[in-house]
Amino acid sequence: MSQTLTHFDARGDAHMVDVSAKPETHRIGVAAGQITMQPETLAMIRDGAHRKGDVFGVARLAGIMAAKRTGELIPLCHPLPLTRVTVEFMVDEAANAVCCRATTETVGRTGVEMEALTAATVALLTIYDMCKAVDRAMTISEVRLLEKHGGKSGSWLADPAV
Amino acid sequence: MSQTLTHFDARGDAHMVDVSAKPETHRIGVAAGQITMQPETLAMIRDGAHRKGDVFGVARLAGIMAAKRTGELIPLCHPLPLTRVTVEFMVDEAANAVCCRATTETVGRTGVEMEALTAATVALLTIYDMCKAVDRAMTISEVRLLEKHGGKSGSWLADPAV
Amino acid sequence: MSQTLTHFDARGDAHMVDVSAKPETHRIGVAAGQITMQPETLAMIRDGAHRKGDVFGVARLAGIMAAKRTGELIPLCHPLPLTRVTVEFMVDEAANAVCCRATTETVGRTGVEMEALTAATVALLTIYDMCKAVDRAMTISEVRLLEKHGGKSGSWLADPAV
Amino acid sequence: MSQTLTHFDARGDAHMVDVSAKPETHRIGVAAGQITMQPETLAMIRDGAHRKGDVFGVARLAGIMAAKRTGELIPLCHPLPLTRVTVEFMVDEAANAVCCRATTETVGRTGVEMEALTAATVALLTIYDMCKAVDRAMTISEVRLLEKHGGKSGSWLADPAV
Amino acid sequence: MSQTLTHFDARGDAHMVDVSAKPETHRIGVAAGQITMQPETLAMIRDGAHRKGDVFGVARLAGIMAAKRTGELIPLCHPLPLTRVTVEFMVDEAANAVCCRATTETVGRTGVEMEALTAATVALLTIYDMCKAVDRAMTISEVRLLEKHGGKSGSWLADPAV
Amino acid sequence: MSQTLTHFDARGDAHMVDVSAKPETHRIGVAAGQITMQPETLAMIRDGAHRKGDVFGVARLAGIMAAKRTGELIPLCHPLPLTRVTVEFMVDEAANAVCCRATTETVGRTGVEMEALTAATVALLTIYDMCKAVDRAMTISEVRLLEKHGGKSGSWLADPAV
Repeated sequence: MSQTLTHFDARGDAHMVDVSAKPETHRIGVAAGQITMQPETLAMIRDGAHRKGDVFGVARLAGIMAAKRTGELIPLCHPLPLTRVTVEFMVDEAANAVCCRATTETVGRTGVEMEALTAATVALLTIYDMCKAVDRAMTISEVRLLEKHGGKSGSWLADPAV
Repeated sequence: MSQTLTHFDARGDAHMVDVSAKPETHRIGVAAGQITMQPETLAMIRDGAHRKGDVFGVARLAGIMAAKRTGELIPLCHPLPLTRVTVEFMVDEAANAVCCRATTETVGRTGVEMEALTAATVALLTIYDMCKAVDRAMTISEVRLLEKHGGKSGSWLADPAV
Repeated sequence: MSQTLTHFDARGDAHMVDVSAKPETHRIGVAAGQITMQPETLAMIRDGAHRKGDVFGVARLAGIMAAKRTGELIPLCHPLPLTRVTVEFMVDEAANAVCCRATTETVGRTGVEMEALTAATVALLTIYDMCKAVDRAMTISEVRLLEKHGGKSGSWLADPAV
Repeated sequence: MSQTLTHFDARGDAHMVDVSAKPETHRIGVAAGQITMQPETLAMIRDGAHRKGDVFGVARLAGIMAAKRTGELIPLCHPLPLTRVTVEFMVDEAANAVCCRATTETVGRTGVEMEALTAATVALLTIYDMCKAVDRAMTISEVRLLEKHGGKSGSWLADPAV
Repeated sequence: MSQTLTHFDARGDAHMVDVSAKPETHRIGVAAGQITMQPETLAMIRDGAHRKGDVFGVARLAGIMAAKRTGELIPLCHPLPLTRVTVEFMVDEAANAVCCRATTETVGRTGVEMEALTAATVALLTIYDMCKAVDRAMTISEVRLLEKHGGKSGSWLADPAV
Repeated sequence: MSQTLTHFDARGDAHMVDVSAKPETHRIGVAAGQITMQPETLAMIRDGAHRKGDVFGVARLAGIMAAKRTGELIPLCHPLPLTRVTVEFMVDEAANAVCCRATTETVGRTGVEMEALTAATVALLTIYDMCKAVDRAMTISEVRLLEKHGGKSGSWLADPAV
């Protein structure tokens, strides 16, 4: 690993990297994460999705809207006009967890990995917010990039063994 | 656990809970999280902090600024004028991880737990952004509330055994 | 009506009116509005609310989140920390319309009428956005204040005859 | 009308629709709306425009600036770099109303109808804000799309008879 | 001057200073600045203010709205609910300049100096934006605090001789 | 100078100018400014950069992040996806000043001069914020465009003699 951190210039000062000369290509980012909780909390969320009190509906929208504001939150991130955002949830009963998976796309000069990670993270934080009155010890973990496509470095897939 | 999710009304519709009648009290929230990476990535961050390319400096600011925007990101969160925000980092060599701890305070009608969690999460996402060119498999985990103080429910401390 | 427009000073220049000396009182604003559409569009929304594709759930969140950003949208509006926001929908079959009612509250130096009107309006615009692919001629109307409470001028109720 | 609501996927979950494969075309959106008021209020606005206290000037800017933030307000709207925004007002003495007309343009993968509707709506809400001290019963109505151009579906014009 | 920079803690890390224990007092900030230009540019602005093309009207609103967003722009600034904002302009024919003066007020735990400086600066930048097509060499200068009142340190007035 | 202010239409009403038909070209903007202070304040900043309390690091990030929000702050500015932002500081011991230079780039239909000016200005305001506890009389001046490239009007360079 002989590379250096590209977000700093030769003097060590932070900058927003120059991507002016890069071509616009179709970019995809996929990120995931999970939130672990008490079995009773998970039951309340799962029941609400079917009956009333749709935690997933609120958290999904929060994630989608946050993806659009990634450039405001992450200081050196380039602003990008997203062309697609999806946020999905899956209940993992064995792990007492809700798993979240976010996909973002654009046609642009840089990747949308941070947008996918931001969508997943804010969606999980929103689940925390909605359930914290009954379970303050919920924990968010396994937030990571699963896939990226497009750009000069092409496709990258997370090691499934991890 | 006979409680229900307070962010939904009797019909199951989401709402921003009424806190108009609550008194203003001094509120504190403390949250933590970590990001695990390759040893070489950790070395680059640690060295930069001393020499040039201050990843922690950028991530700390990102966390502080994100705390102020929590009410925009988390749909049912009350907007609050924060009176203090700190974001600290600690290198855990054994775990190949950077640990982040965020503290938020206000004098207000609701707690600042979400502000602390948002600060910690965005700070960790910013570390991911700055190092992703050399290590795409970094993983954020252990994002959780450590403490809260103030309000009717008083103080709460996370179980240290977890 | 011998009054003048308070948002302008003696020279006719716009300003954000001085409320520094006003006491903090409990303020409530209630606003309403409706969106008229084709009967088939209304049927799709109504069915979705029970089965899948919850237009009301998305529009409700959009209204709540917009209320928090009123001070950014309306140039001379004072920023206010809202203590409650609710957005409700009612289907008016006879009028082929969805009626929206938003309530906002704060403890502050100025009223929250604009916050209630902004919540109702953005909720209705979101319904338009979600259904525009099937019905571009939907029309938003009857957007008005229903009630306000608190502050020096006390309570005000819209004339029900209108 | 055999169409379904495109903002939901096959499971009924909200998403930001994929427009990655759509070509960039010149898009135009035109929207209108009006606000009805007491004759005395209308006189104050109209006089101010000539003498002092330019309500239209403030409302026009509010509408233009809101158009740029449409993607933040409407949850499933794609963010778009607008290439033109205009907001015009016309006094309708017979109806005791101010009529507003907003035009938005871009070169992009999706339409700018929501941007035009948001500009018109926020401009009208700003008129309400500036005159509410003298007339709380003002009502916003007739908010609708007048025209759209560009994209696969081409041009659409509102039925003038309505 | 034995003081240190309060925006850094004992380790030299940036933080948002703790003001939780400070009482809420009435705070006022007054800032000024000017923009120098070609005499022909100044004539266009001055004429427009009377006839058509109101540069001051647009710049004034931009300054007022920017004051409300100071906490988002200045990283370690506390968010504050402003209770008053005014932005005034004065033409200085001799200096070929427009002078701007902004006043901000709140009842809060920290001062509103940054809000006044931000209002004045963004107002002047807006004048630059509106006139840059005819005069790219305009220069903003003399941006400084004129007065502050309230808080533990009480009143401070800029040295008029400077 | 027979030109008129392009930000107003034929009636004198403000609008966001139509750039729909302009081609996308590589645009560069370079702006500068400075902040003058007491020699002791300058010493604290300069020492901190080497030891602890990195004022430049915080101000640089503030400028970069503000550049991304130019379209929200300057009312008639077109929103643009920036492809590069840098903010540099230089200490001018003789003038007791910190000089700031910001460079912005995009591939778009309008220029990025306002983005460069906004970055420089907010960076300087942040220096004021961080040092105001020890020196309230600091003054920002010489904020001006140095260069612009791209677009129909091509390159422009400020007169170095000024």
